[in-house]
Amino acid sequence: MRKLRMGMVGGGQGAFIGGVHRMAAAIDGQIELVCGAFSSNPERSKNSGKELFLPEDRVYGSFEEMILKEKELPADKRMDFISIVTPNHVHFPPAKLALENGFHVICDKPMTYNLEEAYALKKIVESSGQIFALTHNYTGYPMVKQAKAMIAAGDIGKVRKIVVEYPQGWLSTFLEGTDQKQAAWRTDPSRSGIGGSLGDIGTHAENLAEYITGLKITQMCADVGIVVPGRQLDDDTNILLKFENGARGILSCSQISAGEENGLNIRIYGEKAGLYWLQMEPNTLVVKHLDKPTEIIRTGVGALYPEAQAHTRIPAGHPEGYLEAFANIYRNFAKCVQARLEGKEVDPMYNDFPTVDDGVRGMEFIYHAIASGKTEQKWYTM
Amino acid sequence: MRKLRMGMVGGGQGAFIGGVHRMAAAIDGQIELVCGAFSSNPERSKNSGKELFLPEDRVYGSFEEMILKEKELPADKRMDFISIVTPNHVHFPPAKLALENGFHVICDKPMTYNLEEAYALKKIVESSGQIFALTHNYTGYPMVKQAKAMIAAGDIGKVRKIVVEYPQGWLSTFLEGTDQKQAAWRTDPSRSGIGGSLGDIGTHAENLAEYITGLKITQMCADVGIVVPGRQLDDDTNILLKFENGARGILSCSQISAGEENGLNIRIYGEKAGLYWLQMEPNTLVVKHLDKPTEIIRTGVGALYPEAQAHTRIPAGHPEGYLEAFANIYRNFAKCVQARLEGKEVDPMYNDFPTVDDGVRGMEFIYHAIASGKTEQKWYTM
Amino acid sequence: MRKLRMGMVGGGQGAFIGGVHRMAAAIDGQIELVCGAFSSNPERSKNSGKELFLPEDRVYGSFEEMILKEKELPADKRMDFISIVTPNHVHFPPAKLALENGFHVICDKPMTYNLEEAYALKKIVESSGQIFALTHNYTGYPMVKQAKAMIAAGDIGKVRKIVVEYPQGWLSTFLEGTDQKQAAWRTDPSRSGIGGSLGDIGTHAENLAEYITGLKITQMCADVGIVVPGRQLDDDTNILLKFENGARGILSCSQISAGEENGLNIRIYGEKAGLYWLQMEPNTLVVKHLDKPTEIIRTGVGALYPEAQAHTRIPAGHPEGYLEAFANIYRNFAKCVQARLEGKEVDPMYNDFPTVDDGVRGMEFIYHAIASGKTEQKWYTM
Amino acid sequence: MRKLRMGMVGGGQGAFIGGVHRMAAAIDGQIELVCGAFSSNPERSKNSGKELFLPEDRVYGSFEEMILKEKELPADKRMDFISIVTPNHVHFPPAKLALENGFHVICDKPMTYNLEEAYALKKIVESSGQIFALTHNYTGYPMVKQAKAMIAAGDIGKVRKIVVEYPQGWLSTFLEGTDQKQAAWRTDPSRSGIGGSLGDIGTHAENLAEYITGLKITQMCADVGIVVPGRQLDDDTNILLKFENGARGILSCSQISAGEENGLNIRIYGEKAGLYWLQMEPNTLVVKHLDKPTEIIRTGVGALYPEAQAHTRIPAGHPEGYLEAFANIYRNFAKCVQARLEGKEVDPMYNDFPTVDDGVRGMEFIYHAIASGKTEQKWYTM
Repeated sequence: MRKLRMGMVGGGQGAFIGGVHRMAAAIDGQIELVCGAFSSNPERSKNSGKELFLPEDRVYGSFEEMILKEKELPADKRMDFISIVTPNHVHFPPAKLALENGFHVICDKPMTYNLEEAYALKKIVESSGQIFALTHNYTGYPMVKQAKAMIAAGDIGKVRKIVVEYPQGWLSTFLEGTDQKQAAWRTDPSRSGIGGSLGDIGTHAENLAEYITGLKITQMCADVGIVVPGRQLDDDTNILLKFENGARGILSCSQISAGEENGLNIRIYGEKAGLYWLQMEPNTLVVKHLDKPTEIIRTGVGALYPEAQAHTRIPAGHPEGYLEAFANIYRNFAKCVQARLEGKEVDPMYNDFPTVDDGVRGMEFIYHAIASGKTEQKWYTM
Repeated sequence: MRKLRMGMVGGGQGAFIGGVHRMAAAIDGQIELVCGAFSSNPERSKNSGKELFLPEDRVYGSFEEMILKEKELPADKRMDFISIVTPNHVHFPPAKLALENGFHVICDKPMTYNLEEAYALKKIVESSGQIFALTHNYTGYPMVKQAKAMIAAGDIGKVRKIVVEYPQGWLSTFLEGTDQKQAAWRTDPSRSGIGGSLGDIGTHAENLAEYITGLKITQMCADVGIVVPGRQLDDDTNILLKFENGARGILSCSQISAGEENGLNIRIYGEKAGLYWLQMEPNTLVVKHLDKPTEIIRTGVGALYPEAQAHTRIPAGHPEGYLEAFANIYRNFAKCVQARLEGKEVDPMYNDFPTVDDGVRGMEFIYHAIASGKTEQKWYTM
Repeated sequence: MRKLRMGMVGGGQGAFIGGVHRMAAAIDGQIELVCGAFSSNPERSKNSGKELFLPEDRVYGSFEEMILKEKELPADKRMDFISIVTPNHVHFPPAKLALENGFHVICDKPMTYNLEEAYALKKIVESSGQIFALTHNYTGYPMVKQAKAMIAAGDIGKVRKIVVEYPQGWLSTFLEGTDQKQAAWRTDPSRSGIGGSLGDIGTHAENLAEYITGLKITQMCADVGIVVPGRQLDDDTNILLKFENGARGILSCSQISAGEENGLNIRIYGEKAGLYWLQMEPNTLVVKHLDKPTEIIRTGVGALYPEAQAHTRIPAGHPEGYLEAFANIYRNFAKCVQARLEGKEVDPMYNDFPTVDDGVRGMEFIYHAIASGKTEQKWYTM
Repeated sequence: MRKLRMGMVGGGQGAFIGGVHRMAAAIDGQIELVCGAFSSNPERSKNSGKELFLPEDRVYGSFEEMILKEKELPADKRMDFISIVTPNHVHFPPAKLALENGFHVICDKPMTYNLEEAYALKKIVESSGQIFALTHNYTGYPMVKQAKAMIAAGDIGKVRKIVVEYPQGWLSTFLEGTDQKQAAWRTDPSRSGIGGSLGDIGTHAENLAEYITGLKITQMCADVGIVVPGRQLDDDTNILLKFENGARGILSCSQISAGEENGLNIRIYGEKAGLYWLQMEPNTLVVKHLDKPTEIIRTGVGALYPEAQAHTRIPAGHPEGYLEAFANIYRNFAKCVQARLEGKEVDPMYNDFPTVDDGVRGMEFIYHAIASGKTEQKWYTM
């Protein structure tokens, strides 16, 4: 076995999520950043590569150049996979090119700029046989794994109600009117696609709910709102949901919930108990019982399901956070790539990360929510 | 001045809310229970009166008897008002009779059995000139007063989003199939009316949201659910809302949210800040700002709005609870009755309790939510 | 049975704790305020009585007058007991006079002005045969009862460590230099006695720890501090403790812990589990286990010990607060007085309130802590 | 600039803290693990190195071998510093050897096995001119930096009281009687030294209190306890403190506080406000004011002191945890080493990590606490 070699697309100076991906990839010592096309501006790409201690000849001016040149490098030197951390409109092109040239791909969400790209990418992934992971990072938290395992084991009985919310407040003002880079592209339809809060955080909420419960949303009734004057994309969306087993639900994603940080949270009520998880206190899973005291399940404490244990690095009481959850996506993806390199089967415990199917699902969610928001019909079938 | 004299309708042995009303009425030493018709069962009424130290001749076999006989007593002995604590279908008749015979009325919610009674009662109250209060007790909490005052003063800017939830879990099973008295009548359309969770707790949520924000709901889109097999009335209802100023919202009331106690909570997001209040920790009001630390406003601490101060009895750090909030409704009602007796104007600070208009509003809310739940049209105009 | 008749000593206009006692006595409808000597200023006493709707002839200019005149009233009219809510230096005289004249007594804490009075009062209570209760009100909370019952049942194993703290911040400045009435007498040795924070809140902490665990403090090592310049009595005291079973502990009482309200809290660690209770969230008892999830025990939820149930008035999720806990002391005292009047045995469940022995214990605690603070010897035997 | 090269002493298979150090060193991409002597068992060292993708010739059988052989490597290949993650009795020897051979050192705490070694190490560090860091990792949290900066700026006024606690429950049973490796050495005087809980966690508490407040403990009064039968070292110690400015305090470290995880917390009360920080919710700093609402300061939110900002990696609402705080120690150490390599001055903002002086202080704390625990004199001068 050896360290895997990663090439990065995007994430140059001034970006946010690129640094997160690099830290998440680095933390477990299984992945080495060996090259990158960090910016569409070659100068910025070079400078970024230098800061990251990369040799000049592995810092490229474009993802096309990187993919094609790396392909020519000897097998013991060239990158194994690319990490795509660009704005949404630059997800599909590098993913396609990489997959078609024999590289695995790990990609930020939402998966593509539009739904057509999503369907196309699914076909490319399947025909290429390469491994594709999508960083719906919140599913990497140990207590999310615990919740999923509990529900699968029937611990709370049949699921009846799901409330998932992702409130943020950072777009309460017309921030895109300033020089804030994050706000600029995330509210710009030419770079984000048709979803604003829906794409940026709504897909996380949708993915979290379906991942934990194992239930698909079948119908939705969306109130898609643009609250801040002048904004082009939705910034506050509230949706009534129906799930395949008949459970009902509420999904809310908002970027104008003044004063909220990243308050992603989910409540799942079953016949026998309710679960509550809040991303901002991620090492706690609250189990509310019908007739006995509420239990506080904590990362690393007592008898957890193996899925929770397998995604924990440090002992109880030492908080693991966002980066460690993110790193779990990378770690599992890396284990699958490693297994592929060694011609082995991966331990099913680690064959657990969001795939191209989750990506398609997320894009469908955005499109159907926007469509539901436009119709006067109550229930829109997803 | 003298203590006010209260007669009670309902609240005999085995009841729940009657005891709450008596404690709430007693706590400030302004009101004395002098008579009652505690049960439709005269024997139970007698026994209840005895336990409450009432003389036998002031314990009646029916509310009709009570109202008519008390009316005949000398002015310095007869009751001043009645408190109605019966199931919903026995709210209107004693209220009507009392009002028409010169007694003030304080009544549990929802106000009436159906919407027609609500409209009729409004007319009776107005023509009688008597004082009528409805015990939407949650509006009695000091931090609810503080939130209302903050919004009125513009502290959070224009309100943009309102999320109000009342999750309970106590009806997660078919409890009405046992001998649980509370479950029996609250799930029975012949005693509760057409609303289950909507009437029992949804009206509280609606009243709280409109009270704090001063905004009326104008449109709703309701998913009215009956989750537990065999149940006759809704036990889980989720509603998208639009308010008169354009704010959007979510209202959820549920009695099948397993493990929840009385988790009534509200989040209100304005242009400048967000507010959060949870009934189970009622002495705390969280103010989330756009660009500065979240503030924890506490009952009795620092410079609160006078409305909050006026509804606080004890110093900071000594929790006031449900009974004290309930007592604030009684206290304000009593101050208005006292002022009437003395021919004075009441201090506007205390002329603050839910009225017959709130009662009509609550009944409309139930009816419109049920209607919205039945239509395939998305937005139902309230 | 009939309502008990209460006479009050102290608690006139401008006082704080008198109103608390009246609300606590009123809430359950078992006790009626019939007379009072509300102030050493006869004019203020009269006015206070008028506000409380008392007839003029039952409002007295002094406690001596009240006790002696009430004694002359017919048995069906005269008060049954007195409630003493004066500053500490006026506890003993009315208690003594009342007991010696056949009245029961309920008294605020600390019990007396000094230790000699405490020992004397114990003898008087015993010789009089009257019932005496001390309002260490925090022991009235349902979750305190639950904690006590759990420890008695061995649920947490042998107790090993006890940490009890009562932090307040209200005396962080030289408040006694202003016209704040509460600060004035509580920091004045001529009215409070030799203990400042020790008497006002330290005794509550000591009483709570010994009550819940059933263990006596045997040794202490006190650091008694006066922090605010010019203050005469201790305002920040920290004590290492040893308990009779060998457990060790820490007791801290402070009135200069800036920003704290009434943060009384206790943590008790046994061989098998730990308990945590915080007065400001009194309906929650946290049980921390060695090898399984922490449990959140809540007032009214699930299978509690009967002692907790018996001190709860309303259903789960509706917070009971300070007044209800205080009222539990009055309720139990009243049940004992009622039983005495009827010549019956009281249900042992309700024969549960702080007695003259607790009062002596509290005074000893103050005296020994002050003595320990003055010696250079580490362990002081209590 | 280039990545720094790290050699590790200890941290082989089965260890705990070694993995933590490796993750902390890796996360920022500034440090590369290039060699190691992972175990005193050469076979285990080899296997550990292989798992870490190290070439065989950089995995050594002993720290002596590593230091001496690495010294012989060319400058562009050999390690820059060693990381010592062994039990306490193997801190001093590799530190000494490395320093004397021109390597910088980062070392786990407590710094040495005994006080003599600590004093000796201080001299060696000073004479060597090498950089030495001690991983009191809790001081790496952004909110700890914020608290320190607030106090330095006078935001809470003069500090009056400090309460610092480190409760754990994991040694509530005689765990060292099982094959639990961590329990075995941490309770063994031949490997841990004279302090049990004092060395393992008490030093963290001491360091945190002195770091945040900038105040030295001058006197202590310790109750040093061994609670679990058969145990050789203290597992529950409570200490009264006096600080150089006259502030008083309490320090408690316990490993028998059943059910506690790593509940390190500190409360600091000044003339104007109080601060509260809890390691298990590390991104929150609570500021309690005298006369206005409590503020919740959060990592990444609003206007923080530059020291807090400089130690934050990701935006508000995405929790940073234990590893990120730990990584801040490594990051700052690395920046100082980098500056040294480049002959530059380091930005004072990053010249902020625990040094050999903190290590000496910690060892003195252990020794004086043990001594204080043995004397009958109350105050022991530190």
